[in-house]
Amino acid sequence: MSEWNRKTLAKNSNFYPVILAGGRGTRFWPLSRKKRAKQLLALDGKQTMIQQTVGRLLPLASAKSFWIITNDDLRPAILKQLPKLPKAQVLAEPLGRNTAPAIGLAAFLLWREQPDAVIGMFPSDHVIADEKTYRSTIERGAEIAAGGENIVVLGIRPNRAETGYGYIEAGSGFGGDALRVRRFTEKPDAETAAAFVAAGNYFWNSGMFLWSARTLSNALREHLPKTAPILEEIAASFGTRKFAGTFRRLYPKCENISVDYAVLEPRSAKGEHAGNIFCLPADFGWNDLGSWTALHEHHTAKSSPAEGNLINGEGVFVLNAHGNYVHAPGKFVAVVGVSDLVVVETPDALLITTRQHAQDVGKVVKHLDQKKLHRLT
Amino acid sequence: MSEWNRKTLAKNSNFYPVILAGGRGTRFWPLSRKKRAKQLLALDGKQTMIQQTVGRLLPLASAKSFWIITNDDLRPAILKQLPKLPKAQVLAEPLGRNTAPAIGLAAFLLWREQPDAVIGMFPSDHVIADEKTYRSTIERGAEIAAGGENIVVLGIRPNRAETGYGYIEAGSGFGGDALRVRRFTEKPDAETAAAFVAAGNYFWNSGMFLWSARTLSNALREHLPKTAPILEEIAASFGTRKFAGTFRRLYPKCENISVDYAVLEPRSAKGEHAGNIFCLPADFGWNDLGSWTALHEHHTAKSSPAEGNLINGEGVFVLNAHGNYVHAPGKFVAVVGVSDLVVVETPDALLITTRQHAQDVGKVVKHLDQKKLHRLT
Repeated sequence: MSEWNRKTLAKNSNFYPVILAGGRGTRFWPLSRKKRAKQLLALDGKQTMIQQTVGRLLPLASAKSFWIITNDDLRPAILKQLPKLPKAQVLAEPLGRNTAPAIGLAAFLLWREQPDAVIGMFPSDHVIADEKTYRSTIERGAEIAAGGENIVVLGIRPNRAETGYGYIEAGSGFGGDALRVRRFTEKPDAETAAAFVAAGNYFWNSGMFLWSARTLSNALREHLPKTAPILEEIAASFGTRKFAGTFRRLYPKCENISVDYAVLEPRSAKGEHAGNIFCLPADFGWNDLGSWTALHEHHTAKSSPAEGNLINGEGVFVLNAHGNYVHAPGKFVAVVGVSDLVVVETPDALLITTRQHAQDVGKVVKHLDQKKLHRLT
Repeated sequence: MSEWNRKTLAKNSNFYPVILAGGRGTRFWPLSRKKRAKQLLALDGKQTMIQQTVGRLLPLASAKSFWIITNDDLRPAILKQLPKLPKAQVLAEPLGRNTAPAIGLAAFLLWREQPDAVIGMFPSDHVIADEKTYRSTIERGAEIAAGGENIVVLGIRPNRAETGYGYIEAGSGFGGDALRVRRFTEKPDAETAAAFVAAGNYFWNSGMFLWSARTLSNALREHLPKTAPILEEIAASFGTRKFAGTFRRLYPKCENISVDYAVLEPRSAKGEHAGNIFCLPADFGWNDLGSWTALHEHHTAKSSPAEGNLINGEGVFVLNAHGNYVHAPGKFVAVVGVSDLVVVETPDALLITTRQHAQDVGKVVKHLDQKKLHRLT
């Protein structure tokens, strides 16, 4: 346990959540739109996904410690949904460049002020059932991240041979539940995924990472030598009148690359002891709600509705129907003799698909983009 | 050919169409409502079903010869849709009493003025593909009906073993295409229906009849001795200030019975030669559009849409989907990986069912009636 400095995170500590909120979430069309992406929707409860993300981290960090990386389409709605966060720390990328430049910019911004700051990188659109365990896991991760050149990734114990996620291969133990990371693996085929799950030492890559500003800055300088200086230059202008222009002009020159691919995979290739990457198995009821189907499963697991029908409407009549997800707020909904459908209605659009085909919903948005039907995207 | 007086019908002849428009058409919910029943909907083309019914008969009878029997819920809309018809001849039953009292009232009203008037009884919600043949069939029927005590029914040549219709068993020929009627049969079971279709001398009962005012009045006096005097008393008050009150007070006392059951079945029991009932095989592309499924089939037969998808919306995206009927005017509709569905959207309701289950849509309305959700019925 000597590798890291045991202490408990508290408000005004050096823990800085950086929330990545630039995604579009097209698989929740027609509810999700360019200016109302998945993270801005209340898909689970009354708060939106990003409000929940911030809310469950607030016991660990004061509002002024949060950074959000988003885009111009979403920034106004985010400011509205999160009025207590510092406006200047809600940054709109002039162009989406994947996660490495986004988290990298936050790293250089924080490194200038507090090289020892522990940065937690969080997606903005996941649900967490057990927030208490979630926070204690992050506290443990922050302790590990505060020491040396350590990188911590939260790994989700897989309960199915999912081919849509990246996997983490864990090696030897490292104090408490932490495990050394042997390898990151991109989305596997079905056979490989099944073997991973059977092996027992593979975890889903949750996209949640912890590292110090120093560790991440140094890693970026090493692994992205062209992009790191650009990000440093942008960070250096922060707080000045030049910032907006510099950001807009330079950021698009960054490489378009994920932090997994840029930093984690090459780092893990150094070997499980040299890489200094640690996986914390995360048993806090994580769900990334990747599609209408995932949302349906999440809600039915929570509420066990009759015949598995989840119907959001103003009154319902069900006859010989089961396993359906219907979103039609304000309407009386009648489902007769249908099963496993997903039907979502908005004032300007109607989606009719099945739970099995819900992952194809992104193709609708692709079609709308191609046809330049912008009012619908 | 001596049994009837050959002449061609023309405007201002003694042909009087009586259109029964009191039905509710619950199987077209959520589009059909109490005040907007099926016959008031434009399910096929720009005109409503009742407008089409009147329009295709106008070459045979002047507007002032039409009578419409409906109810209080529908009368205002009918007057609006058919402004050229005499308002006084659009009668609202105080209570639905099935077809015998409805057509009977028309018979006594016309009998008082013109006992030789030929009455044609027509449902208000069917489609006819070949209007020219339709009219020439009616002209031939009117000729037969003008003679003696003859009753004419238009029979549809069955193209499937439908169990939802009544059947007419035809006997010997009687001039031209006309056949003597041997028997009326209520809705048969599937086996019987198949035998009827195979036999070749069975026709669907179209609900379209022709008879003189005298013939029908006499038949009602004979077969409905309690109801006939009530209808005569109501008819006698027509044109006076007492009519509305008399109609409202007496009509509910009529027997609740169909003209088929009250008159045609007992009459046909007299034998095919004594009954004087004649069937005219009707080959004019008749369809009663009994359900969303029937409407889908009717439209796909006419327009052969890609993959059998009939989608009424503002823009469409189809992927791995076929045989669907979607009504969502003004909305962009995306159908992904679904087949043979019926989805109908209105401002306050959403129906999701299959072509196979569309006949169960009436059960939704029954449920809404029971729950007293009147705004939805």
